[in-house]
Amino acid sequence: MRNIIRLLQSSVFRNHIKLINNPIKFAHSIPQWGTNKSHRKIKIPNPFRDIIMADPKVEEILAPLRASVKEQGDIVRKLKVEKAPEIDIKKAVAELKTRKKILEDKELSLAPTEEMFDRAKMEDLIKRRFFYDQSFAIYGGITGQFDFGPMGCALKTNMIQLWRKFFILQEQMLEVDCSILTPEPVLKASGHVERFADLMTKDVKSGECFRLDHLIKAHLEKIKSEKNTSSELKAEIEDIIVKLDGMTSDEMSALMERFNMKSPVSGNDLTPPIEFNLMFNTQIGPSGLVKGFLRPETAQGIFVNFKRLLEFNQGRLPFAAAQIGNSFRNEISPRSGLLRVREFTMCEIEHFCDGKDHPKFESVRNTAMLLYSADNQEQGRPAEVMTIGEAVSKGIVNNETLGYFMARIHLYMLAVGIDPKKLRFRQHMGNEMAHYACDCWDAECLSSYGWIECVGCADRSAYDLTQHTKATGIRLAAEKKLPAPKQIEVVEAVANKATIGKQFKKHAKAINDALAALDSTSLEELHSKLETDKEYTLTTVDGEFKLTPDLVSVKKSQKTVHVEEIIPSVIEPSFGIGRILYCILEHNFKMREGDEQRTYFSLPATVAPMKCAVLPLSGNAEFQPFVRKLSEELTNEDVSHKVDDSSGSIGRRYARTDELGVPYAITVDFDSLNEPNTVTLRERDGMGQVRLLLSEVPKVVKDLANSKISWAQVEAKYPKFDQQETVKGAAA
Amino acid sequence: MRNIIRLLQSSVFRNHIKLINNPIKFAHSIPQWGTNKSHRKIKIPNPFRDIIMADPKVEEILAPLRASVKEQGDIVRKLKVEKAPEIDIKKAVAELKTRKKILEDKELSLAPTEEMFDRAKMEDLIKRRFFYDQSFAIYGGITGQFDFGPMGCALKTNMIQLWRKFFILQEQMLEVDCSILTPEPVLKASGHVERFADLMTKDVKSGECFRLDHLIKAHLEKIKSEKNTSSELKAEIEDIIVKLDGMTSDEMSALMERFNMKSPVSGNDLTPPIEFNLMFNTQIGPSGLVKGFLRPETAQGIFVNFKRLLEFNQGRLPFAAAQIGNSFRNEISPRSGLLRVREFTMCEIEHFCDGKDHPKFESVRNTAMLLYSADNQEQGRPAEVMTIGEAVSKGIVNNETLGYFMARIHLYMLAVGIDPKKLRFRQHMGNEMAHYACDCWDAECLSSYGWIECVGCADRSAYDLTQHTKATGIRLAAEKKLPAPKQIEVVEAVANKATIGKQFKKHAKAINDALAALDSTSLEELHSKLETDKEYTLTTVDGEFKLTPDLVSVKKSQKTVHVEEIIPSVIEPSFGIGRILYCILEHNFKMREGDEQRTYFSLPATVAPMKCAVLPLSGNAEFQPFVRKLSEELTNEDVSHKVDDSSGSIGRRYARTDELGVPYAITVDFDSLNEPNTVTLRERDGMGQVRLLLSEVPKVVKDLANSKISWAQVEAKYPKFDQQETVKGAAA
Repeated sequence: MRNIIRLLQSSVFRNHIKLINNPIKFAHSIPQWGTNKSHRKIKIPNPFRDIIMADPKVEEILAPLRASVKEQGDIVRKLKVEKAPEIDIKKAVAELKTRKKILEDKELSLAPTEEMFDRAKMEDLIKRRFFYDQSFAIYGGITGQFDFGPMGCALKTNMIQLWRKFFILQEQMLEVDCSILTPEPVLKASGHVERFADLMTKDVKSGECFRLDHLIKAHLEKIKSEKNTSSELKAEIEDIIVKLDGMTSDEMSALMERFNMKSPVSGNDLTPPIEFNLMFNTQIGPSGLVKGFLRPETAQGIFVNFKRLLEFNQGRLPFAAAQIGNSFRNEISPRSGLLRVREFTMCEIEHFCDGKDHPKFESVRNTAMLLYSADNQEQGRPAEVMTIGEAVSKGIVNNETLGYFMARIHLYMLAVGIDPKKLRFRQHMGNEMAHYACDCWDAECLSSYGWIECVGCADRSAYDLTQHTKATGIRLAAEKKLPAPKQIEVVEAVANKATIGKQFKKHAKAINDALAALDSTSLEELHSKLETDKEYTLTTVDGEFKLTPDLVSVKKSQKTVHVEEIIPSVIEPSFGIGRILYCILEHNFKMREGDEQRTYFSLPATVAPMKCAVLPLSGNAEFQPFVRKLSEELTNEDVSHKVDDSSGSIGRRYARTDELGVPYAITVDFDSLNEPNTVTLRERDGMGQVRLLLSEVPKVVKDLANSKISWAQVEAKYPKFDQQETVKGAAA
Repeated sequence: MRNIIRLLQSSVFRNHIKLINNPIKFAHSIPQWGTNKSHRKIKIPNPFRDIIMADPKVEEILAPLRASVKEQGDIVRKLKVEKAPEIDIKKAVAELKTRKKILEDKELSLAPTEEMFDRAKMEDLIKRRFFYDQSFAIYGGITGQFDFGPMGCALKTNMIQLWRKFFILQEQMLEVDCSILTPEPVLKASGHVERFADLMTKDVKSGECFRLDHLIKAHLEKIKSEKNTSSELKAEIEDIIVKLDGMTSDEMSALMERFNMKSPVSGNDLTPPIEFNLMFNTQIGPSGLVKGFLRPETAQGIFVNFKRLLEFNQGRLPFAAAQIGNSFRNEISPRSGLLRVREFTMCEIEHFCDGKDHPKFESVRNTAMLLYSADNQEQGRPAEVMTIGEAVSKGIVNNETLGYFMARIHLYMLAVGIDPKKLRFRQHMGNEMAHYACDCWDAECLSSYGWIECVGCADRSAYDLTQHTKATGIRLAAEKKLPAPKQIEVVEAVANKATIGKQFKKHAKAINDALAALDSTSLEELHSKLETDKEYTLTTVDGEFKLTPDLVSVKKSQKTVHVEEIIPSVIEPSFGIGRILYCILEHNFKMREGDEQRTYFSLPATVAPMKCAVLPLSGNAEFQPFVRKLSEELTNEDVSHKVDDSSGSIGRRYARTDELGVPYAITVDFDSLNEPNTVTLRERDGMGQVRLLLSEVPKVVKDLANSKISWAQVEAKYPKFDQQETVKGAAA
């Protein structure tokens, strides 16, 4: 138990909390949502590392950088083996990160450019077609909050619906839906009240707040860009910027002084660094006395329900629980559109287990993925494509269960439209990871903001259940049947409840609960303290109490047991839906060849906001009954669709549905009026068209949307359509 | 514009806000969630009013009560026609409500009892099988917050999924997903900051808070139950309790004094009534200066996006937007389980239109519903079954669009499992309704807590868009093409922007915006004030400013216009998902005949948490491959299911799946091992079983779950199953 407290207090846990909060670790500095045109065109490198490696010229340039990373990686290892002082290890790791970053930037800059991505153009489309936009814009808007319009909302809903099928249905997980408002003690136990903070500084006069690392970075970049800055200082600044992420409050404070930093807005003095907790707080109930927070993650709702869920699963391990819902973080300065926001939807899984094998691992063993192991990072080597089976058998991925979830995450990401060339799994390095985790991999997507963490997949061990057990005195544990009964020595605290009741009155329950929840180490301590000091200080939910030998004793006895108690390990895949959605949009934003103005989203039909459009060729009244009939039949088949009978040429309306990412369009024309009634069906990406019976088309679109048939099959089955036979007017 | 301000300030608007907040208008006083056994068995009356009316003895008893309501209803009408002082009308309405309540209670008590409903038994099942339970229970729990476990969460998700199909897909609505955290100005404009409050009182010493109406009611009920209370006082108390809902702060304060009320917990003195705003507040961003609230309803997110949505719909009316999401109300004393909670899921529709006809009204015209019109309520008549077509053509329901939505709500409620005999639509009476509404109907479900408002369906007219236009200066309006161009006189404020800029500096923008947003009435006023007083006080987002003729003038000119501007009317169906879910559970809680211990939920397959269970007859290893195969094939068909291979007799496991509301169970037994492999399929409600091929069963269950076939059809097609042919052990 004490061990855990020590972990919580260690700087590594602090780092972990910071990581939760700063997941865009390699993101470049980025303008606000839609306001800055300076980054208009961004070179998106092709990240196929094996291709890069195949180019000897590129490798020649990279070789010294790789060697430099490896050299430092070896130093870090050596220090760890020698159990060198923590401060020395930390310094060496910071230097390692610097070298890694330089290598990675060079790699990206040398990669063959695949395409030019025009972010301003995409953002314009996203706003214009209301995929999403800033919340409360008519009131001036609030940064870090976005409203999803019809297209963004449908895309998000479809992603979640597929997630539910992919994980909850297929893995028979237990889905829960827990409260967002969370009372303080829960988040004290999880460590969020104390540690979930960022450093900021305030303008001493106006009170305006700045996130400290952002401020320092901007200030230093400005100095670096000035003409009369020496090249030595420029190099030093580069080095500082890379190391910023791991700096302490004191180190940052020193930088502020050294470079004489003022408010970039007013030029006023700034306060020393302030820790700002990122949780939104409020009061629950009218008294103002019950402090609560909006949850910063959905995970805790699952942990506090562990006993009920275990019981629902009839006491058996393993099982997984899942939750889909909103979380809230009061970012100091939200930026980068959907990537760093104040409220966001998460899908989280907590897989509780006592062994790490997975019965379904066989089914994913051959899934090939781009893995960027901690080892490769430390040794300056690139990410590698390998199967998850290989990765687990080589020990690169810690165990089957973790590997199974990584493969399932990979498959889900491809299904929703993430470009496989822009998806990698990056392992946390030893010093990035929380102490309690055995292994942790992030699914990262490459975007114009750099590699973005979209899904985390961590082995949290028994940390959370242990913390809540400690805080509540209620044992969150499972029982496992032993192969054979065994004799054990039972050590227990025997409370003199009558005396405790008399002496401590309303705190008696808390004391008795805390005594019952003591683990063996604490019981040993209780025993020895009572003998030597005649007193033991017990920590309870009501505070600390001194107990004397007349109140409690320690009893040892023999007992036959048939079960053992297990605090299960937890594997946690955690999805940030908004980030994935943004990356899907970037990966699928396309321009028609030769026409920069005709842009579209090549979204997979499964997640596309609507599955098809129904377009009458013109406003001719004769088309209306057919359009109505089609719409009704599509509705009967549960196919979401949009009738676009607005004026405008058919070409213009095709362009509009393309912009919405609608994969199929059905057109009613003059030929449709003749028996047997036929229509054209057009596919968005290739713009090919076929002709088929009106009565058949709803089912065909449904099968296409559900991936039961492919467009190639449709093209093979139905005649290609070039031009309608009935010329306009001749139909009547 | 001014008219609206006056409305907002009127006591009726206050009433409206109170209604939002106190929708369980006729709920009986109810114990806390699961703590009180005194209401164990509750008589649920059969509310088929036509049956009641058919019983002449019952009608004989009710006749004088009906007459008494009618007498008072006539008085109210007369006062309204005579335009009597508002205070007189209010008093008369309060008396009318009292008489109505007495009639309604009598009616319910005389209705033939259909069944005994055992709420404690149902709540026990709900907790035991973790449909839902109190949040953070291991930390002592928080009242008014619930976590949905796997079964409750699946039921809720299925209800929402069906809602999405039923409304968004079928009506092609524009779904949005907006921010929960809302900045103060938005909720000031909507009236929530000022009016969304309940009265409470505090213990002067301990600070403990009590909702005032609850406290008064409990205090008076205690007096009433005392032996030495006179029968006159008892009668008076009954009268007071009925009128409590409409009482002002002063009236309640007088009651506190008259009956010398103290804190029921400590006996300490209480403060005078305090208005407590029910919104949770917090600060957005680190400065602590941007005040925000958790939204109390999802509707405002749609209104502030009106312009984007209208544009998405290519500028055309009508269109409907919808939102599914959580809202938050800081109830003073939450109670009645899911019926009054602090966070809850809503599904809201805002249908924007300029005319009230509905193109699809024909499709619902013959839907028969139980309607309880304002007129019937005022005249002491019971609710009546009639078709919605009849109700609209008789003018009972104001218009087709409102009627269309009411019918669709009715059909949705039946589809999710609400008992049609326990569903009515109650119209708000004139004095219950907000001034801006033309008509308002609540879908109410009868439960052991009385009639519960589950869905509101209101015509909000142009109120909200007007309010936000006023607050932001941005015109939230649509344009409609005129049949022919016309000459109009244009009145506009001409701002002297240079002088305004010089004089008001940073407030200049707010002033110019406010001037541009003035409506014709305000412009008239501006014109006359500038002429007579040489000064006009303008209200802006930055506060009030005095404007003189050198700063602004009013210009009148002629202009040819082709379009007219319309602020659309809004019809708002608003669903409380938690309340509907609770009523579904009550309406479907059943006991097996002759065995009170065997309870189950007769949930329709569409919303049942899982569609089927897969049960091996015993732990025999030979069953396992068949169970696995079934589970895989059900997954492929997207059929949610649960494998129950725990020990326990097959009967016990059937009982368990029945408790979960699972409609079908597939059993693998010794006969299944023989070629061709067959299984039994069992239906929950009738417990009938058929025998069919294992390979066929997944598709059959899928079709049953989607209502493509009925159980009767399955029974007709496949042989009935009584007993397996292969006796245990003989199979090997």
